[in-house]
Amino acid sequence: MNRLSLNQWTTRRWSLADAVEGCVRHEIPAIGVWRQQLHECGLDRAVKLVADSGLRVSSLCRGGFLTEGTALDDNRRAIDEAAELGAPCLVMVVGGLPGVPAGETPAAGFSRDLPAARERVAEALAVLAPYAGERGVRLALEPLHPMYCADRAVISTLGQAVDLAEAFPVEQVGVVVDTFHVWWDPQVFEQIARAGRRIASYQVCDWLQPLPADVLLGRGMMGDGVIDFGPLTAAVEAAGYRGDIEVEIFNADIWAADPDEVLTTMKDRYRTLVR
Amino acid sequence: MNRLSLNQWTTRRWSLADAVEGCVRHEIPAIGVWRQQLHECGLDRAVKLVADSGLRVSSLCRGGFLTEGTALDDNRRAIDEAAELGAPCLVMVVGGLPGVPAGETPAAGFSRDLPAARERVAEALAVLAPYAGERGVRLALEPLHPMYCADRAVISTLGQAVDLAEAFPVEQVGVVVDTFHVWWDPQVFEQIARAGRRIASYQVCDWLQPLPADVLLGRGMMGDGVIDFGPLTAAVEAAGYRGDIEVEIFNADIWAADPDEVLTTMKDRYRTLVR
Repeated sequence: MNRLSLNQWTTRRWSLADAVEGCVRHEIPAIGVWRQQLHECGLDRAVKLVADSGLRVSSLCRGGFLTEGTALDDNRRAIDEAAELGAPCLVMVVGGLPGVPAGETPAAGFSRDLPAARERVAEALAVLAPYAGERGVRLALEPLHPMYCADRAVISTLGQAVDLAEAFPVEQVGVVVDTFHVWWDPQVFEQIARAGRRIASYQVCDWLQPLPADVLLGRGMMGDGVIDFGPLTAAVEAAGYRGDIEVEIFNADIWAADPDEVLTTMKDRYRTLVR
Repeated sequence: MNRLSLNQWTTRRWSLADAVEGCVRHEIPAIGVWRQQLHECGLDRAVKLVADSGLRVSSLCRGGFLTEGTALDDNRRAIDEAAELGAPCLVMVVGGLPGVPAGETPAAGFSRDLPAARERVAEALAVLAPYAGERGVRLALEPLHPMYCADRAVISTLGQAVDLAEAFPVEQVGVVVDTFHVWWDPQVFEQIARAGRRIASYQVCDWLQPLPADVLLGRGMMGDGVIDFGPLTAAVEAAGYRGDIEVEIFNADIWAADPDEVLTTMKDRYRTLVR
């Protein structure tokens, strides 16, 4: 249990203070913080809350959405917040095609040029990576499942994320391995090995079958879906990752449930299925 | 227009006779036949219908679902049917995890062992490929979008399909390039080039954004989604493919529409967007 982290989105209706207290109550040693709740709490208060609790911050979620070309200032703020909070990394969901809002219909004049959108991500990273490095924060590029390519992330595989990260020093840019996004990839084991010290975060949750109507909410509690966690965890370990393991679940039923029960189940499933 | 093919699923409520007449009426020179409608028509009658029409058969859809380990006899029948019809290839949707029915909840005792399921596909192909080759039919391995990995196809990328195909003679096993399934892949252009003479079928339709509640029906008419067809068609051409280009759309609105109007729109979009 000493590497388990509650990603705050799993208990989304809890405030940051609630989530910190919940982790302490359930003896979960780390938390992945979301910016929405961080802003509701206020940065200074959040820093004190976390410090007083003794929890580690495993990540700040999230920066990114770089493909619109207007996100640099907000990403600099996110990096500053991560540094203040002591988060080792800022998770980056890099954005989809320009003009395609997440979960919505494309806007008039949206772009279908996927290679150009990917190029934009690389260009924005070249600006942000040194800024992050100076503040001791690592940008953690998250490959999202290919079904989110149009509207959320034009980084669609772990191999592609590592390719992109390798243009930067290892302490400035890493990658996220999230079981939901990568479990299907025929190259996943070789790319985890290749990622090695680039792995900045390991996130776990299950792939629900069938997917719900809103595919964003297809993430499930470990054991409720089809993913075989053991080999993925073993590969991440073998690659040298020794950081926290975050449980991040987007799921309407879990959001509606009693968060304390969710944490109890999460610890149980983590113990039996992930570790 | 001399390479356009109507995949029968696009006008799903048409019988085979209706679809053949529709193609002739709209001067579409080829048809991709589905086994359901073929069986409703009867094989002998279907062979005569197609021969009398002067249409080419671009493919028979579909064989596969090899991961349950019980599908060999049905696949041999499908190969026989393709040979009788004069279809150059049998499209293979290889199946998902054993015990996970398409679009449904996993059965009790289903398998989470994805590498083993992939191994089963290779083993079944080793049995079926020579049988197909003897009958002049090519097995066309279709990588499906990774969101169908659990329940429909454990072949999730074009590169993986080519890897698998390369164990067999080029005339026995090829691959399908379907824009809907591969458009997101950062390796798609290099893998199309690598596939070369392995490309047995090129299928087109668009990726709808956002996806509908049933993700199987997220395929749209070209131009209604986010895919940039020009570069994909150019890559397939550059790889040496000179066969038919099938339009295959799973979409509730298109199935509900007047099939003659669908064919008119299809020809128009094909002319302006695909070629």
